[in-house]
Amino acid sequence: MTRHHNFCAGPAALPTVVLERARDELLDYHGLGLSVMEMSHRSEAFVAIAEQAEADLRDLLEIPDNYRVLFTQGGATLQFAAVPYNLLGAGGRANFVHTGIWGKKAIAEARHLFGDVHVAASSEGNGHSAVPRQDDIVLSEDAAYLHYTANETIGGLEFDYIPEARRPDGTSVPLVCDMSSSLLAGPLDVSKFGVIYAGAQKNIGPAGLVVLIVRDDLLDQACDHMPTLFGYRALSEGASMVNTPATYSWYLAGRVFDWLKHDVGGLSAMDAINTRKAARLYGAIDGSGLYANPITLRNRSRMNVPFVLADPRLDGPFLKEAEAAGLLNLKGHRSVGGMRASLYNAVPEAAVEALIDFMADFEKRRG
Amino acid sequence: MTRHHNFCAGPAALPTVVLERARDELLDYHGLGLSVMEMSHRSEAFVAIAEQAEADLRDLLEIPDNYRVLFTQGGATLQFAAVPYNLLGAGGRANFVHTGIWGKKAIAEARHLFGDVHVAASSEGNGHSAVPRQDDIVLSEDAAYLHYTANETIGGLEFDYIPEARRPDGTSVPLVCDMSSSLLAGPLDVSKFGVIYAGAQKNIGPAGLVVLIVRDDLLDQACDHMPTLFGYRALSEGASMVNTPATYSWYLAGRVFDWLKHDVGGLSAMDAINTRKAARLYGAIDGSGLYANPITLRNRSRMNVPFVLADPRLDGPFLKEAEAAGLLNLKGHRSVGGMRASLYNAVPEAAVEALIDFMADFEKRRG
Repeated sequence: MTRHHNFCAGPAALPTVVLERARDELLDYHGLGLSVMEMSHRSEAFVAIAEQAEADLRDLLEIPDNYRVLFTQGGATLQFAAVPYNLLGAGGRANFVHTGIWGKKAIAEARHLFGDVHVAASSEGNGHSAVPRQDDIVLSEDAAYLHYTANETIGGLEFDYIPEARRPDGTSVPLVCDMSSSLLAGPLDVSKFGVIYAGAQKNIGPAGLVVLIVRDDLLDQACDHMPTLFGYRALSEGASMVNTPATYSWYLAGRVFDWLKHDVGGLSAMDAINTRKAARLYGAIDGSGLYANPITLRNRSRMNVPFVLADPRLDGPFLKEAEAAGLLNLKGHRSVGGMRASLYNAVPEAAVEALIDFMADFEKRRG
Repeated sequence: MTRHHNFCAGPAALPTVVLERARDELLDYHGLGLSVMEMSHRSEAFVAIAEQAEADLRDLLEIPDNYRVLFTQGGATLQFAAVPYNLLGAGGRANFVHTGIWGKKAIAEARHLFGDVHVAASSEGNGHSAVPRQDDIVLSEDAAYLHYTANETIGGLEFDYIPEARRPDGTSVPLVCDMSSSLLAGPLDVSKFGVIYAGAQKNIGPAGLVVLIVRDDLLDQACDHMPTLFGYRALSEGASMVNTPATYSWYLAGRVFDWLKHDVGGLSAMDAINTRKAARLYGAIDGSGLYANPITLRNRSRMNVPFVLADPRLDGPFLKEAEAAGLLNLKGHRSVGGMRASLYNAVPEAAVEALIDFMADFEKRRG
């Protein structure tokens, strides 16, 4: 068995120890004689798995008691629809900070369903190389909530602060955040948010699971005519089992939370590791003559590091040689080109060191 | 490692050989150095997995070329919303045959979203013990499509024929079928249908995946204002990768299709096995003095066999002793009580024999 270094932007690398344990109990979970995949979601064994996962996530993020943790399906993209359905029942407009491709998709879906939105700030003017500052974010008078993307996975652009969401008259509205590619990268003050959502396939588990963290006063702001399964109130009352949930993905997410707690030592420890990994790679890029990253220093993503080679004709050889060296999935998103190294929680520091060594060697030979 | 006999209604038993292979390649798929869970859905390796799964499903069901096969998320329950959104764009009303709890939920969701539906036939009058006959199904003049549930997983009630969907004026409308608990149980004439959908967690794979089979003239009947991800046209054009799909579930579904083709020998062979299993168990029930099943013979489900004990005080001891004998998940759905043995494809004939032996022994001792 070989395990290469996997820099995929998602579905992303999972901790090897998590996969080993999943493998060992795949056909027979704890001597019960069946796989977790084969369990009723209402069985005692699965409910215990589900509840432990939630408890560990609450513990890791220190989620306050007035927030519900929900496990659902459809990807974060389905939340681009579910969020406005859940929050615009009393009228008002969805407000957005637009910092890249994922934010743009969220805006497009709300506009598609509700006709009108307000873009409170955008980094389009600087080519999405720096996020808007707090003073640049101007909500509409009729703002119902403010949505932003904490980390743009494709652009490699990350918020270095949590925005305040206030209308011009000073009243505050719920802050909604797509944290698909940054949740669990480090500690987070959940109490600043109304809704946090994240597709699992970065720092949580396999694709097909979404984690939602919803402040409980926002369970009853929904539109009347939305698909029942979108409803945060319904999901909450049904303990995320209104219909059959993605049980195996939920179980694996629980294994990842357990790994973060007990193997890594919590989110502060994870944060320190992620900071070191990103600093090492950006340092190597900035110190080279061949590689470059265009993002303003304070907004450089710790999770997704896009970079370009000075001579794009070297892209092909770079990727080919990297793969031969066991450094996988470094090709940039098809919409932007270049390279991208995603350094999610499960990517070890050794992988980053191996990448840096390869990059230096490649530059020496081909740069 | 122990593998017990698992009669769970879903998430249900998977073939042991499928799980063994998944285990063996969980950390390193075909020497690529990463798990299928850790692959980009757009990678060459995963696209090959996805395409092979579709090809095998097409082959098994002999799906005509003018049908699209789509892999999506959210469970069959999300299709209770997605189907009317996709098919009512040109107006008209959703028509339903109501034969149990799942049909009722589908009706409720369409009514919730579109205000009015037409129930073309119902088996409520006979306590859902026999499905309506063709002559009893009376569509509305404004029917846009007819929806039915091929097999009611909870009631154990299965259609013994494929209904015709014609308005009173004789014009035909698309037939839509929830086949969550019967798809792949045997051969099927797909050409009779407009839309077939099935949650994976019965005969296909792990929970969190939905298989859709859509006739291609129905890709463009959608309402304007529905969530983008619901759209059959969008899913089809995006090769079911409009957003990140449930990659690992898709892979496992592909392994199940491969098992059906190569280990079982196709759907006719599967059909014969399923017929034998069901005949053996219903025979044992009918021949006993303790067990009973209330469904009309021709509509007895081959997949889900509910039965009651003459003395409900024996329910507890029956379940406890069955579990001790390695016969798992025989408890009936919480909404109906009693027992239920689900005999999906992955439940081997030996499991049914073991159950019958246990039932006979229990009756001798306690009946």
